[in-house]
Amino acid sequence: MADTERKLSNGGSRIDFQTDPSRYRHWKLKLDGEVATLLMDVDEKATLFEGYELKLNSYDLGVDIELADAVERLRFEHPQVKVILLRSAKPRVFCAGANIRMLAGASHAHKVNFCKFTNETRNGIEDASESSGLSTICVINGTAAGGGYELALAADHIMLIDDGSSAVSLPELPLLAVLPGTGGLTRVTDKRKVRRDHADVFCTTEEGVKGKRAVDWRLVDEVVPGSKLEPAVIERAMAFAAKSKRPADAKGIALTPLARKRAENGVEYSTVAVELDRARRLATITVRGPDTPPPKTADEMVGQGAQFWPLRLARELDDAILDIRVNEFEVAAIVFKSAGDGGQVLAYDAFLDANKGHWLAREIRGLWKRVLKRIDLTSRSLVALIEPGSCFAGTLAEIAFATDRSYMLIGTRGGDNKPPAAIALTDVNFGAYPMSNALSRLASRFLADPADLARAKAEIGKPLEAATAAELGLVTFALDDIDWEDEIRVFLEERASFSPDGLTGLEANLRFGGPETMESKIFARLTAWQNWIFQRPNAVGEEGALKRYGTGQKPVFDTKRV
Amino acid sequence: MADTERKLSNGGSRIDFQTDPSRYRHWKLKLDGEVATLLMDVDEKATLFEGYELKLNSYDLGVDIELADAVERLRFEHPQVKVILLRSAKPRVFCAGANIRMLAGASHAHKVNFCKFTNETRNGIEDASESSGLSTICVINGTAAGGGYELALAADHIMLIDDGSSAVSLPELPLLAVLPGTGGLTRVTDKRKVRRDHADVFCTTEEGVKGKRAVDWRLVDEVVPGSKLEPAVIERAMAFAAKSKRPADAKGIALTPLARKRAENGVEYSTVAVELDRARRLATITVRGPDTPPPKTADEMVGQGAQFWPLRLARELDDAILDIRVNEFEVAAIVFKSAGDGGQVLAYDAFLDANKGHWLAREIRGLWKRVLKRIDLTSRSLVALIEPGSCFAGTLAEIAFATDRSYMLIGTRGGDNKPPAAIALTDVNFGAYPMSNALSRLASRFLADPADLARAKAEIGKPLEAATAAELGLVTFALDDIDWEDEIRVFLEERASFSPDGLTGLEANLRFGGPETMESKIFARLTAWQNWIFQRPNAVGEEGALKRYGTGQKPVFDTKRV
Repeated sequence: MADTERKLSNGGSRIDFQTDPSRYRHWKLKLDGEVATLLMDVDEKATLFEGYELKLNSYDLGVDIELADAVERLRFEHPQVKVILLRSAKPRVFCAGANIRMLAGASHAHKVNFCKFTNETRNGIEDASESSGLSTICVINGTAAGGGYELALAADHIMLIDDGSSAVSLPELPLLAVLPGTGGLTRVTDKRKVRRDHADVFCTTEEGVKGKRAVDWRLVDEVVPGSKLEPAVIERAMAFAAKSKRPADAKGIALTPLARKRAENGVEYSTVAVELDRARRLATITVRGPDTPPPKTADEMVGQGAQFWPLRLARELDDAILDIRVNEFEVAAIVFKSAGDGGQVLAYDAFLDANKGHWLAREIRGLWKRVLKRIDLTSRSLVALIEPGSCFAGTLAEIAFATDRSYMLIGTRGGDNKPPAAIALTDVNFGAYPMSNALSRLASRFLADPADLARAKAEIGKPLEAATAAELGLVTFALDDIDWEDEIRVFLEERASFSPDGLTGLEANLRFGGPETMESKIFARLTAWQNWIFQRPNAVGEEGALKRYGTGQKPVFDTKRV
Repeated sequence: MADTERKLSNGGSRIDFQTDPSRYRHWKLKLDGEVATLLMDVDEKATLFEGYELKLNSYDLGVDIELADAVERLRFEHPQVKVILLRSAKPRVFCAGANIRMLAGASHAHKVNFCKFTNETRNGIEDASESSGLSTICVINGTAAGGGYELALAADHIMLIDDGSSAVSLPELPLLAVLPGTGGLTRVTDKRKVRRDHADVFCTTEEGVKGKRAVDWRLVDEVVPGSKLEPAVIERAMAFAAKSKRPADAKGIALTPLARKRAENGVEYSTVAVELDRARRLATITVRGPDTPPPKTADEMVGQGAQFWPLRLARELDDAILDIRVNEFEVAAIVFKSAGDGGQVLAYDAFLDANKGHWLAREIRGLWKRVLKRIDLTSRSLVALIEPGSCFAGTLAEIAFATDRSYMLIGTRGGDNKPPAAIALTDVNFGAYPMSNALSRLASRFLADPADLARAKAEIGKPLEAATAAELGLVTFALDDIDWEDEIRVFLEERASFSPDGLTGLEANLRFGGPETMESKIFARLTAWQNWIFQRPNAVGEEGALKRYGTGQKPVFDTKRV
């Protein structure tokens, strides 16, 4: 069930991350050559759950699912677009942030996963700019409060109308006793580089900051009088477009609906199968290698569009992960398997490499980067089982490297004619898919000694059977057929017996050794503190600020500083 | 009150951080030339609180207060010591970690502050090595479990006896459903650089890892058979001593007891006054400048010993901060004031600079660095009030830069003949006292534009009155006498009205912009996750693992992954 405390408005039992513009209730996407306008116009009745209304362009996960979809489509379907204008269709309000009644009534698990997804969406907006030259300009024509300003913070450029009343604000702390947890605090200090004392004043001032002070304190890039706003927006859009290297004449591909068939205990996609073993609290995700060799030319790839195997798999895998995250809270561990011809997987990697200057190849690599990060940030124990018949090669090997531990079978299985399992590395394992700490998964793995990384690199392209893979440090355990079943059964049973919260904290620490980036700080420092606050009675208790907001009653706080 | 759920064993109402070797109950300090042995021999009856026994060298805050004291004394009283051997006096056990019954019965606030102090103590052990050349070798002759292994992780070198049974372990997750939160997870990944999948196995294996695997997995530096242990320890100690630049022939100074007089609403030290306004939930800490000019020579400084003003003030300020942290949970904000002659403060800074090659000057600077970090990490709103008669210059200006915001009075006060307040910068404000993010407080403040830092640097040595200080960005607000009282009263009332938890999370984010270090990761990612887990029923509920440990009953978990 998606949320134990709430009913979905559509009467269903699962949150669905798939949508398309024809179904949007909250966003309007307007295309005009190099410039797309993404207009926020939240339908207050079209809520994901029952029990609240989305007034003043406030949002719930349903609104964000559409936003994430729109940004993906701009990347794939409209490669000619160089600038997104992020605007509101409502008068005098840009966005009031996450809906408070939704938050107040949501389970802890939903709140945490809601924030995780909205964070990933905002990171995606930044990634579109950094990796694809698709910039975002946020035009604030009214109030941008809380999550509304956090959305603006994801843009490359923030314009605020100078009308004496429009302001940006992060009123979470004074109003609700929670944090601006969708990256807000971290982007204020680390992206906008607002002076820490100014940030302190800003984040404790309910009404926010407007006009010249908003610029002086680096909260927005410019304030513009209403009469000059439209020409200024056009001017900025043209300036950002001029810097973009997106192709002016490319034709996009349609992100067609996923082939997806749900049964009681699993989901079948075209390249991904999810099997749920509820008794053992396991989800097994099997990714399938390609059936056919890669196309000969980039044009052929464009022709295949969303059916092109790497793109199809990335989209299906992303959907499978998101579905487990918010709809299957009881799943303790995700077991990754693969099936197919590793040589074909490598051939697709080689094809994408050969065409890495092509916009679509770049977008597909970028999508894989984001999907792999989504796996890194999934709070379930992650395991790879590498068996005969698997194809953990190149891009697919990254899935194994994203897991908390991996088991590889030595040799063949009795009664099975499949050759011994092998994994294979390609260049993509050494930089194409950085984690949120900016290192590749192998660099994160071999923090201790760069020589280990070099040793692995020397094996690029070779099939690495279990003993070699273990010796190179690429898998955790190599087991023979006799031990395999028992060892893995015991491990998975043990994992399911541990405290789910303890595992979440443990994995969030062990997965991200080494350096930090703004992105990793958001998922570490900021998110962990927010999760703590989401447990504290001062926020979520019956007398807490989230529960009492809008009731006319003041919250009652335990005044101890911890 | 120190802890609302527990009674102090000594019948008192406050935890005292002051101790000395004559009063140690848990540690024995043996000196032998360049080598000191710090022997852990916990007296199980000598607990800080009632209700538990410190079996198997397990520890509570009282044990750690002695450890912190011992390390400080080695730095100041025994400058000839180059190596600390950290050992256990108990047979077959090194240390069993934080006492579980103590944790199970402690308030959330005590748990959080206990972990913060033990973290600071372990950071202090590492700092002694890095900044003073005082290395630590940990000799594990038995079991080092949980906090016991985390203590070992603070050492430069870990030796484990190879006797077939002695092991290192982090069994927090499987046994207690909490994290190894005293730096354990972060030091495993970032200091020992243990491969992430090995770390996953290690941290979920109750019995830990021993022998060759402990070395192969980088958990310890060497394993040594019992018969060869003592000669190997001597050999390692000599090798580390040979690398140390600590002075062989210096005579230490005695860290004499602090002059401290406690009243109902405050504490008086010789250079620090703490005034508690319980109704307004404020603590005002006034630091006093020196009464006399600095000594002429380093020998004179050594002669003054613990009475030397910068050292006296640092020790008193440290004690005052720690006292508020664990004994005054209701204090919402700490207001820092200063009184004295800024010129004299600068003269002391110049004296320490002129003698920076001297071991004692170096130790004093090092202590100030740690005390200022302690302020950064104190979960109370921090405010500096810079008024006529104050002396926020050089080292003391760092206190103002450590605050969340600062207010400076413009000009003079009616009926007061003191000249206008001025602050002054010295070289120490640009690197001598890094925060845990490795940046100076001014570099953290001016992340946006290095030119701001350069502008401030150009003003070194000049008295900077309010308008100039504000223009340079060194203070948050400059106010004249007419607005002063009201503005500050309203601000402090507002601060006390906010959610204490929300403020803790907000300040923990805004204070540490920019880069992260292993140390800042411990206080961010690891600590915040641990604090979350310390709120979760799976750990602390009636059926949770912490509560049920040792009862024979298994914990019952809510199996949702969040």
